[in-house]
Amino acid sequence: MTITTVLDTPLLADPADVAADPSRHRVLTGDRPTGPLHLGHYFGTLVNRVRLQRQGVETYLVVADYQVITDRLSPGEIAANAREVVLDNLAAGIDPDAATIFAHSAVPALNQLLLPFLSLTTVAELQRNPTVKDEAQAAGIGSISGLLLTYPVHQAADILFCHGTLVPVGDDQLPHVEQTRLIARRFNERYAGGRVVFGEPQALLSPAPRLLGVDGRKMSKSRGNAIALKATADETARQIKRSVTDAERTVTYDPVGRPGVSSLVLLAALCLRKSPSEVAESVGGRGSAALKALVTEAVNEELRPVRERRAALAAEPGLVESLLAAGARRATEVASRTLDEVQSALGMTY
Amino acid sequence: MTITTVLDTPLLADPADVAADPSRHRVLTGDRPTGPLHLGHYFGTLVNRVRLQRQGVETYLVVADYQVITDRLSPGEIAANAREVVLDNLAAGIDPDAATIFAHSAVPALNQLLLPFLSLTTVAELQRNPTVKDEAQAAGIGSISGLLLTYPVHQAADILFCHGTLVPVGDDQLPHVEQTRLIARRFNERYAGGRVVFGEPQALLSPAPRLLGVDGRKMSKSRGNAIALKATADETARQIKRSVTDAERTVTYDPVGRPGVSSLVLLAALCLRKSPSEVAESVGGRGSAALKALVTEAVNEELRPVRERRAALAAEPGLVESLLAAGARRATEVASRTLDEVQSALGMTY
Repeated sequence: MTITTVLDTPLLADPADVAADPSRHRVLTGDRPTGPLHLGHYFGTLVNRVRLQRQGVETYLVVADYQVITDRLSPGEIAANAREVVLDNLAAGIDPDAATIFAHSAVPALNQLLLPFLSLTTVAELQRNPTVKDEAQAAGIGSISGLLLTYPVHQAADILFCHGTLVPVGDDQLPHVEQTRLIARRFNERYAGGRVVFGEPQALLSPAPRLLGVDGRKMSKSRGNAIALKATADETARQIKRSVTDAERTVTYDPVGRPGVSSLVLLAALCLRKSPSEVAESVGGRGSAALKALVTEAVNEELRPVRERRAALAAEPGLVESLLAAGARRATEVASRTLDEVQSALGMTY
Repeated sequence: MTITTVLDTPLLADPADVAADPSRHRVLTGDRPTGPLHLGHYFGTLVNRVRLQRQGVETYLVVADYQVITDRLSPGEIAANAREVVLDNLAAGIDPDAATIFAHSAVPALNQLLLPFLSLTTVAELQRNPTVKDEAQAAGIGSISGLLLTYPVHQAADILFCHGTLVPVGDDQLPHVEQTRLIARRFNERYAGGRVVFGEPQALLSPAPRLLGVDGRKMSKSRGNAIALKATADETARQIKRSVTDAERTVTYDPVGRPGVSSLVLLAALCLRKSPSEVAESVGGRGSAALKALVTEAVNEELRPVRERRAALAAEPGLVESLLAAGARRATEVASRTLDEVQSALGMTY
């Protein structure tokens, strides 16, 4: 807890600055436990998380269980899904000894921060949040729930409870980081007489472009078009085989004009650490079938060590349970300290 | 914890039913710590609370500290105000050994219930709540805060954390009790497969009509028109002396046509356990000055034992602090049990 809070930083963090002085930073990241993670998560965030942790950035990883019921009526198999999500993170390379991994619902002191932070947020701001609007529309909900409307404030509690400085996000999450910065600033001004209780976290945009699923739409657990990290090599081959491509023989990288083919090219490029155009050229006139064979090979090769680690970890009885219990204890300690600071600023000490 | 949850009860409880079997009930009540309580609270709710407790109804009394920042920018002297509120309740006759008295902010497990309960509430319902609308208007807030919009759901957490069955309220709070009943019903249906985790609490309407302040408007701490329980007899006399009346000599009870005079008549009637018309007749043609003398005498006589108890309690060092600490411990035990039930219904057990 030696990290100093910083004000007047830009919303977007510069990866070079982070790499230059990783001990100045603390990352808050996490996943909703709605099912096993897939290649979109892997290249979009997991690889980035692991890189940051290996650089020496302290890592908090939240299993956002309450956020599962923001946009659906049933929580589903939350405990089983939480287990998958934790295994996927560990398999990707997150070091459980260095990271604090916990479920939201196991840390009441964190969740309590929602109350003072809601007092610093206007309903108009919440209703203007474009990502909340999109998610409500995607979920097809007529009248959104109070939990969906307020989840950006809950996310602020995630980030600020551990005085997180960096939030690795896709651009759809930028409004939430901006809301968190507003809450931090207002807390300091309104409740702490200008003293810096909370610094303003920064967003770290994922360097990887968004992957499409095998049906050509955004890769997503709920659409069933995603290649799961835990899938077997055969399952992976089958899924790639049924990917939507087009009738043109020569493979090119043209994400707007040829989204299906280009998504496969991109996937191979990410796995092979090449540029998409290099990959496209290497296939050239050999067509979609050759491209699919290349992608299958590349994905299975990339995920082979991940899948091996995952299988070994999954076989350890009680591993995930004890990690989550230890993480909840550690997160509760940290959250209780932050809550004490908040209560003391508000004068709620009796 | 032997109270059985009941479904399909009407919104309004019948006081006779409660008196007939008080051990079937548990009361959740409380105050915002914005300043010392006044005669409006005393006749509107305190007398009622004390009566229920003496009948043998288990009592939870929350000092609603987070709800202070729903409609104002600064929390004010919250700890000092919490102390006043607790002393006022004890002075009015609440037995601290039989009641659980605690501050919201000291019970994280209770506050966490806000999250699952927000998932059971639509934003449309919150925005339709007429009391929230009125309060936003009274506070003169352009864009209301997330905390003001969602406080009826936080109130549901208050009521349901202890499986409260009775909520003594004024009619302005009925929408919140109705929202709590909706949340209880939906929780059982949506998350517990129809099993009754939460009963539906009932509202117990205060039998006392609403008192006006000395300026003829609703008696309210924030309007400065209220006679505080802790005021001295002299301060009380001075405040009643400057009450707004009218030029008509004969005193009558006519709340619509003569609100100022009638509020004084009502106040005397409440103190003297007479009907307002009896009081009005007893003053008759002797005019406002005689009415004010009668009211002053009646109020000071009614409050004499309350004020004596209050002074004695206020002189005990550490009394309120230790009561609030013990109450927070007890409320945390109860809230943790309820939270465990909730987590288990949601499958959030790891």
